[in-house]
Amino acid sequence: MRYATRRALVLVSAMHITASVFINDDEYGLHQDYEKWLEELAPHAPISQYQHNRTGEDNADAHLKRQIMGREVVVAVTGGRLDFGTWERIFYGEFDGRQQKRVLVKIIGE
Amino acid sequence: MRYATRRALVLVSAMHITASVFINDDEYGLHQDYEKWLEELAPHAPISQYQHNRTGEDNADAHLKRQIMGREVVVAVTGGRLDFGTWERIFYGEFDGRQQKRVLVKIIGE
Amino acid sequence: MRYATRRALVLVSAMHITASVFINDDEYGLHQDYEKWLEELAPHAPISQYQHNRTGEDNADAHLKRQIMGREVVVAVTGGRLDFGTWERIFYGEFDGRQQKRVLVKIIGE
Repeated sequence: MRYATRRALVLVSAMHITASVFINDDEYGLHQDYEKWLEELAPHAPISQYQHNRTGEDNADAHLKRQIMGREVVVAVTGGRLDFGTWERIFYGEFDGRQQKRVLVKIIGE
Repeated sequence: MRYATRRALVLVSAMHITASVFINDDEYGLHQDYEKWLEELAPHAPISQYQHNRTGEDNADAHLKRQIMGREVVVAVTGGRLDFGTWERIFYGEFDGRQQKRVLVKIIGE
Repeated sequence: MRYATRRALVLVSAMHITASVFINDDEYGLHQDYEKWLEELAPHAPISQYQHNRTGEDNADAHLKRQIMGREVVVAVTGGRLDFGTWERIFYGEFDGRQQKRVLVKIIGE
């Protein structure tokens, strides 16, 4: 990605409250580790364990998982390029699975 | 909320280190789920389980809970309006309960 | 810290994906509590429990711990000074322990 702006901050955020935008390694095994780990920390079932699910939803766990993984990332841009460490990559994680995927990208700079 | 700036990033952050500003659903049951879940992941008692509490405090768990929920959110503004997904709302969560509530809002843009 | 900019947002982020930049209390006991707590939530051993470690790594847990503690913080600047609450301090946490420490600081403002 290159930007017209020379020096900026880029916000990348999930627009759904059961999803996350996060930065980590582009390694498939790790992404499976995240899924298993989040399921241990905030299990989907039994769905009756969450008060939110009394509204007719069954996705309370997804709202919890998203808090661990985060809603957004802010990345610096210098000379038109993302200031990334060697292994940094941006991912979208959806923990409900039935939502339309929508990501917001906003660039503020010079 | 409307802003004079047309295009901006807004930072909303908790000024207390036992509190969080986070974005999620405006649903009372979910907020109770968060409280119960955070208490499971970082129990308040026994307070002697935390070294921080040897300083005379009893709120080490609140410092842990805040890390899960996050300190701050960054939201985009376009045309004077927050670029929010349908269900996104900003909340302040206090996990100690005895602190004055102070939130910082900073807008940087054009 | 004083900045030439009068009004700004400062991004401070970890450039390694097993590390965090976070804001909390400058209290040694609390930092030890974080270490112990993160080890309970995402244990290092047995390393075979993580698929990521089949790549020859043994640091999958560090990638998980970093998600709880966060990658970055965004802090406001007014009048050339960080808009910090009384006890807010910025820390770098490394959960792998073998990485070079690199932090990015980016200031965007007026």
